[in-house]
Amino acid sequence: MGKENLAQKRSGGGGLPTSTAAPAANGRNRGLGSLPRGRQIQKTFNNIKITILCGFVTILVLRGTIGVGNLGNSDADAVNQNIIEETNRILAEIRSDSDPNDPDELTETEVNPNITYTLGPKIANWDKERKAWLNSNPEFPNFVNGKARILLVTGSPPKPCDNPIGDHYLLKSIKNKIDYCRIHGIEIVYNLAHLDKELAGYWAKLPLIRRLMLSHPEVEWIWWMDSDALFTDMVFEIPLSKYKNYNLVVHGYPDLMFDQKSWIALNTGSFLFRNCQWSLDLLDAWAPMGPKGPIREEAGKVLTANLKGRPAFEADDQSALIYLLLSQKDQWMNKVFLENSYYLHGYWAGLVDRYEEMMEKYHPGLGDERWPFVTHFVGCKPCGSYGDYPVEKCLGSMERAFNFADNQVLKLYGFGHRGLLSPKIKRIRNETAAPLEVVDQFDIRRHPVHESSGSQS
Amino acid sequence: MGKENLAQKRSGGGGLPTSTAAPAANGRNRGLGSLPRGRQIQKTFNNIKITILCGFVTILVLRGTIGVGNLGNSDADAVNQNIIEETNRILAEIRSDSDPNDPDELTETEVNPNITYTLGPKIANWDKERKAWLNSNPEFPNFVNGKARILLVTGSPPKPCDNPIGDHYLLKSIKNKIDYCRIHGIEIVYNLAHLDKELAGYWAKLPLIRRLMLSHPEVEWIWWMDSDALFTDMVFEIPLSKYKNYNLVVHGYPDLMFDQKSWIALNTGSFLFRNCQWSLDLLDAWAPMGPKGPIREEAGKVLTANLKGRPAFEADDQSALIYLLLSQKDQWMNKVFLENSYYLHGYWAGLVDRYEEMMEKYHPGLGDERWPFVTHFVGCKPCGSYGDYPVEKCLGSMERAFNFADNQVLKLYGFGHRGLLSPKIKRIRNETAAPLEVVDQFDIRRHPVHESSGSQS
Repeated sequence: MGKENLAQKRSGGGGLPTSTAAPAANGRNRGLGSLPRGRQIQKTFNNIKITILCGFVTILVLRGTIGVGNLGNSDADAVNQNIIEETNRILAEIRSDSDPNDPDELTETEVNPNITYTLGPKIANWDKERKAWLNSNPEFPNFVNGKARILLVTGSPPKPCDNPIGDHYLLKSIKNKIDYCRIHGIEIVYNLAHLDKELAGYWAKLPLIRRLMLSHPEVEWIWWMDSDALFTDMVFEIPLSKYKNYNLVVHGYPDLMFDQKSWIALNTGSFLFRNCQWSLDLLDAWAPMGPKGPIREEAGKVLTANLKGRPAFEADDQSALIYLLLSQKDQWMNKVFLENSYYLHGYWAGLVDRYEEMMEKYHPGLGDERWPFVTHFVGCKPCGSYGDYPVEKCLGSMERAFNFADNQVLKLYGFGHRGLLSPKIKRIRNETAAPLEVVDQFDIRRHPVHESSGSQS
Repeated sequence: MGKENLAQKRSGGGGLPTSTAAPAANGRNRGLGSLPRGRQIQKTFNNIKITILCGFVTILVLRGTIGVGNLGNSDADAVNQNIIEETNRILAEIRSDSDPNDPDELTETEVNPNITYTLGPKIANWDKERKAWLNSNPEFPNFVNGKARILLVTGSPPKPCDNPIGDHYLLKSIKNKIDYCRIHGIEIVYNLAHLDKELAGYWAKLPLIRRLMLSHPEVEWIWWMDSDALFTDMVFEIPLSKYKNYNLVVHGYPDLMFDQKSWIALNTGSFLFRNCQWSLDLLDAWAPMGPKGPIREEAGKVLTANLKGRPAFEADDQSALIYLLLSQKDQWMNKVFLENSYYLHGYWAGLVDRYEEMMEKYHPGLGDERWPFVTHFVGCKPCGSYGDYPVEKCLGSMERAFNFADNQVLKLYGFGHRGLLSPKIKRIRNETAAPLEVVDQFDIRRHPVHESSGSQS
């Protein structure tokens, strides 16, 4: 060890030069007393300057390590930080528990464009087979209490969100769906798995829908709903009788579709597929643009070139569906209902600031711009790192939508949120010794609304 | 501004002394050429020393700010970190959106011990009123397809978990419950609200159960289940016929209860209450130890003094129930079923390491130590900061339990997890062009098991 280091060690701790007894680098000890006074003052000033500077930098180091304002609570924070770091380490281990060389390993891999991708073996007689199965299995009817059996399908990626708050909003989102579906007798499948390594991300819904159709013949309609879409009208019911001659119901606008060929002519965040051969065929026709890799990249260019307003990126399921329905219009459109008389999908930005106005002027059951059926947080991406909108706007708006809906559920129990931004609730009705009167009056299921006109039956 | 600062500014940026042209503090410019050679070398060494030192400290500052090993990805991490910090700031705003002086504000407050606490107005004739209501409302029967209507109730605190991974496991836990309940025709209420400011935490289930009984007369059984309890036997069904003369079914051991008076003689993490007057009365008798503050503290001391093995802490609902059933045994026990022939609650530590052995030797539908119905992660507390067990053990075990259960659900769809620690799935069966054969063979609902003997019907 050189004399410089020894000198630093002798000056203590971090070896920063101090204003006292700072030996020179060559080992010769120059006491301050042996210099002219001017030089002494100069040296002193220099030393003080360096001390202040490096002390300042030391404080910055400490600040960076333990955080400002935490000096009084460093123990608890240190433990908390330890727990979070340990958790992340464990998660990383869990996430890495896989063999990248395992051919069975379902990771989203690129597809050889020379091999034609299919969703599965061709099923050609599903209507007949399904009908026969239903006849043989009367204990699994496709209509219950006069209503067609609906299966609501949603999901999210298998791993924790990049942004921790994302999992909290996924939890609130599924609670919201559980409430709606309990009230309306709808079953739920929450998917946390990638069924097809070639179709992950927004394309994952295609193999999932197909799989569920074939595994649940008792289900009449499969309703896909994004995890970032919330029910905001707890009373409104989909007017299924309107769709008896249709097999796909999706929120969209004919003029945007056929006149403008816009890439947002319809929205695949919330749509219904009838469980039938036609739907299997449409899924087969829809899937080819999806496989990850050169196919999806090239398809993306085709879509951007042909659809108005579409940015340049890989093929997404929504653009691909629009393109398919435009290019094979005669084959498919007679069974596709582009619904816009209520918000099967309601783009959040125009809705979330009006909830108080809605509560003042209108009532649940309308499902449209007066009381939106579904508020869909397109572009917010709370689970990921990069949304298209400011985080504050998104989180606050999702909180408002959740509470706006939750108020409609809590009403039966006599509670409501303090405000649309508050997770806390308050009583809106005194407790009663005659609870059944309250049930008769407030249970949504006892006042079903079947038509989008909002009339109560 | 003094000359020192000017000097620092002229030397650039952070004002750290450099080896070139460092003007002296008194403004006199001493070029290096005017000093003897030895002194020049000494000064140079000093300057280099200081440069290296402060450079080193600067690096420490950067490290503390952006993290080790991130120098190659500092942009993305900086953005990520910004997002997380912004999210936390927004959350803090949302959480603070409340008026502490609002009397309607439902925060857990201490109770004046001189005022007798009650869950609500006394209901005295619930059986008769409920029966009349059921008769008048045949469209809301309490038995459906021969099965008593069950409402599964669970929940978690309204705010994001202290530990971010907690929300991810709450999400997986509710997905697990959604799967079981869909297969077995059970409705779910997921509670995210505090209905009673005096009874929060583990006591929150009491006002919630009461509220749901009174609001859902069509429900025959209310099944409370903790958020840290997972279904691990997707086939097993509760043998309700066994309990036709009982009103409370809870996992427990008579000898631990009556001989040892143990504080873990039963477990309130998973239990069923019949919707009837007796249950309302029991809830009323159970609640008095719960109110936050001196009541709960003092009650805790009574419980610790009377129950074997109980540590010293405030009264919890489980200990309070044991104490109540012991001290008023004749009043209540004839309607309480202490169930231990299957794992209505299965303590996780003895179970999670045996899942592979179970898969090898046994099959779903048994519900007991061979294939546990419920695996309950008592003490893990993934949502909080301080569990009773090492984080790694808890998280890994919860992952295993989740996947062990999920395999039973995915089987119908032809998939299974790569391993019990892996979120990724693989095919366990080739796709087929005859999907209905698979349905007949693998749909759990078509092979119900009603008795804990595990026989298939």
